[in-house]
Amino acid sequence: MIKTDILIIGAGPTGLFTVFEAGLLKLRCHLIDALPQPGGQCSEIYPKKPIYDIPAYPEILAGDLTDKLMEQIKQFEPGFTLGERADTIDKQEDGTFIVTTNKGTKHQAPVVAIAGGLGSFEPRKPPISNINNYEGKGVEYMIKEPEMYRGKDVVIAGGGDSALDWSIFLADVANSVTLIHRRNEFRGHLDSVDQVQKLKNEGIINLITPAEVKEIVGNDKVEGVVVHKDNEEPFTIPTDHFIPLFGLSPKLGPIADWGLEIEKNAIKVNNALDYQTNIPGIYAIGDVNTYPGKLKLILCGFHEATLMCQSAFKRIFPDKKYVMKYTTVGGVEGFDGTKKEAPKAVIKKIE
Amino acid sequence: MIKTDILIIGAGPTGLFTVFEAGLLKLRCHLIDALPQPGGQCSEIYPKKPIYDIPAYPEILAGDLTDKLMEQIKQFEPGFTLGERADTIDKQEDGTFIVTTNKGTKHQAPVVAIAGGLGSFEPRKPPISNINNYEGKGVEYMIKEPEMYRGKDVVIAGGGDSALDWSIFLADVANSVTLIHRRNEFRGHLDSVDQVQKLKNEGIINLITPAEVKEIVGNDKVEGVVVHKDNEEPFTIPTDHFIPLFGLSPKLGPIADWGLEIEKNAIKVNNALDYQTNIPGIYAIGDVNTYPGKLKLILCGFHEATLMCQSAFKRIFPDKKYVMKYTTVGGVEGFDGTKKEAPKAVIKKIE
Ligand SMILES: Cc1cc2nc3c(=O)[nH]c(=O)nc-3n(C[C@H](O)[C@H](O)[C@H](O)COP(=O)(O)OP(=O)(O)OC[C@H]3O[C@@H](n4cnc5c(N)ncnc54)[C@H](O)[C@@H]3O)c2cc1C
Ligand SMILES: Cc1cc2nc3c(=O)[nH]c(=O)nc-3n(C[C@H](O)[C@H](O)[C@H](O)COP(=O)(O)OP(=O)(O)OC[C@H]3O[C@@H](n4cnc5c(N)ncnc54)[C@H](O)[C@@H]3O)c2cc1C
Repeated sequence: MIKTDILIIGAGPTGLFTVFEAGLLKLRCHLIDALPQPGGQCSEIYPKKPIYDIPAYPEILAGDLTDKLMEQIKQFEPGFTLGERADTIDKQEDGTFIVTTNKGTKHQAPVVAIAGGLGSFEPRKPPISNINNYEGKGVEYMIKEPEMYRGKDVVIAGGGDSALDWSIFLADVANSVTLIHRRNEFRGHLDSVDQVQKLKNEGIINLITPAEVKEIVGNDKVEGVVVHKDNEEPFTIPTDHFIPLFGLSPKLGPIADWGLEIEKNAIKVNNALDYQTNIPGIYAIGDVNTYPGKLKLILCGFHEATLMCQSAFKRIFPDKKYVMKYTTVGGVEGFDGTKKEAPKAVIKKIE
Repeated sequence: MIKTDILIIGAGPTGLFTVFEAGLLKLRCHLIDALPQPGGQCSEIYPKKPIYDIPAYPEILAGDLTDKLMEQIKQFEPGFTLGERADTIDKQEDGTFIVTTNKGTKHQAPVVAIAGGLGSFEPRKPPISNINNYEGKGVEYMIKEPEMYRGKDVVIAGGGDSALDWSIFLADVANSVTLIHRRNEFRGHLDSVDQVQKLKNEGIINLITPAEVKEIVGNDKVEGVVVHKDNEEPFTIPTDHFIPLFGLSPKLGPIADWGLEIEKNAIKVNNALDYQTNIPGIYAIGDVNTYPGKLKLILCGFHEATLMCQSAFKRIFPDKKYVMKYTTVGGVEGFDGTKKEAPKAVIKKIE
């Protein structure tokens, strides 16, 4: 059982910044995300695209925003359960909650902050009838541990940035990389398309287009994929892994059944006070919540997270009085023993 | 008469970021501030100190935060009335407001956003009986135009960062700089104290401590100041300017009489919707407002400004339908003809 003060569901920008605001209040956080990496939409959908409306950043790439947030919260040692979906929540007699993931990992906390964005990112699966049999046995819809492909034969399917970028990356790691796409045209950053072209010309990436994987073969685990190419007989490519990268799409999913008031596919909260849901102790912040005038913007999630942490503090320590100190004035004391602090003014004679 | 869409009172971080959010909605802004420079508390009180809780900035100096915001809003060509205090507001028959400053400058807009922080920064004046007679005639409490001191004789009084930093700066500009402080000890950044010591040793800054200016002399304008030093006869130093830098302190001031609901020295707003005050068309955002759970933090001002602009848009264009576009997707089109835009993905054959 993982125990923490605030259990955060969703490691997008809102969830990440919550760790910082909680840390200032000496509350520890643990985050669950269905994605293998933190950053939510920013890291999954548009890591290399610029955002222009983060206050005081005239421009920042979504991936860099994630990195900066990770750097900012490092002092507060957040825990992560990545690549797992929070499926059920159970209220305990002592008022705490236990949240269990699809892989059975259990987390307990007195406060749950749902920062689930548009929902848990779930892979779009290709229409291959027997694919379910091979999940976790050579079929992966997202790449969690690139090292597990070292020296292996890998087939990637897809025509967008993920397929391009992972083909490039794994070309250096795997024994062989085959990229299959049902068109000749790829859609992505010019750089990535050009690099795949180069690796193909050099014989490093094996490109098969226009083509589709229609079947997986293998006892117990993936041993090959059957490829259908226009005007050719179907043929089998031996491979250790088949990685279909057709994008991930967010689904509110199991959270919709937690007894929370839902409106417009989002969770209703009390924005006049603390972004709490209809279940005391469960908050919803960032894109996942709704209230009159709600805007699904990153900067709004930051504010909501900040106010929510104040309320969580009062719930966890009903008798403690908290006096807010500016970070500039009080500094920031990490759980890791580090302290950030403004240089003090001196009082010194001039003579 | 200066006309604009949103008249912003206060050019602190909240007021500045409002220009950006308004700009995205194609609304123009003009800012009034009592200070000679933008940045509010950040530029006036702690420009060289680090802030640690600006989201995605593990650390940023308050002065740099101001600079970044100025850079971010540049595309939207904000107007500024600096060094003037907004004193009166008059509602017109057409529903617009006219705001007049202490210097008589008039501004007209359909929406007024009060981002006044802890209030208008007003100088702490030294107890010199005839000082009022010389204001604007050689006595300045803040420095608006450093160039006006070129080749002049200047006496600065004070013992903090402002007195130190302006003495250093004007040493290069003025004909002579005299720094007077009632103690031998100065309080400020070590760098600044050391540099003044150096300039004093080199005979570039004339330092008189412990001493006080007790009187100003001159017909019509400052011609000299009378200095009292312990155990010495009072003596007169000829000078063109006398600049007492004893700090500025914020006062809600005239805004308190505008008919707005005031609570805890702040303006009550409807935080459940759009941060509007009890007078439709007048909003209050940032440190100047209050509502249940309010935190006087910079990041909260950013959120409040953003929601407020949406409401202002509806007020100004009741019939226009606005569809929010992410800056990443729609880019940012400035009033100055510039456009920021994410590089487009390409669709390209790999062969
Ligand atoms: C193309 C594009 C451009 C954008 N441009 C801008 C812009 O310019 N400015 C701006 O402010 N915003 C922009 N946005 C929106 C911005 O990305 C979102 O507002 C932001 O990501 C919301 O952050 P969040 O942390 O609330 O949620 P998300 O980023 O959506 O993160 C939520 C996370 O929760 C996880 N999750 C949900 N449910 C579960 C569960 N049950 N179990 C485990 N994990 C779960 C998801 O997997 C996800 O990783 C853009 C979005 C897109 C798609
Ligand atoms: C030492 C110190 C450290 C701080 N550290 C932090 C921190 O770490 N994190 C954080 O989030 N916040 C911090 N703060 C608070 C932060 O600076 C404020 O929250 C922020 O400045 C508020 O921004 P604002 O734009 O709402 O108001 P302000 O910055 O106060 O700006 C308001 C402006 O309005 C002007 N004004 C008011 N009335 C009038 C009028 N009638 N006419 C003309 N002009 C007027 C004032 O002159 C002023 O310039 C700190 C503050 C101080 C003093």
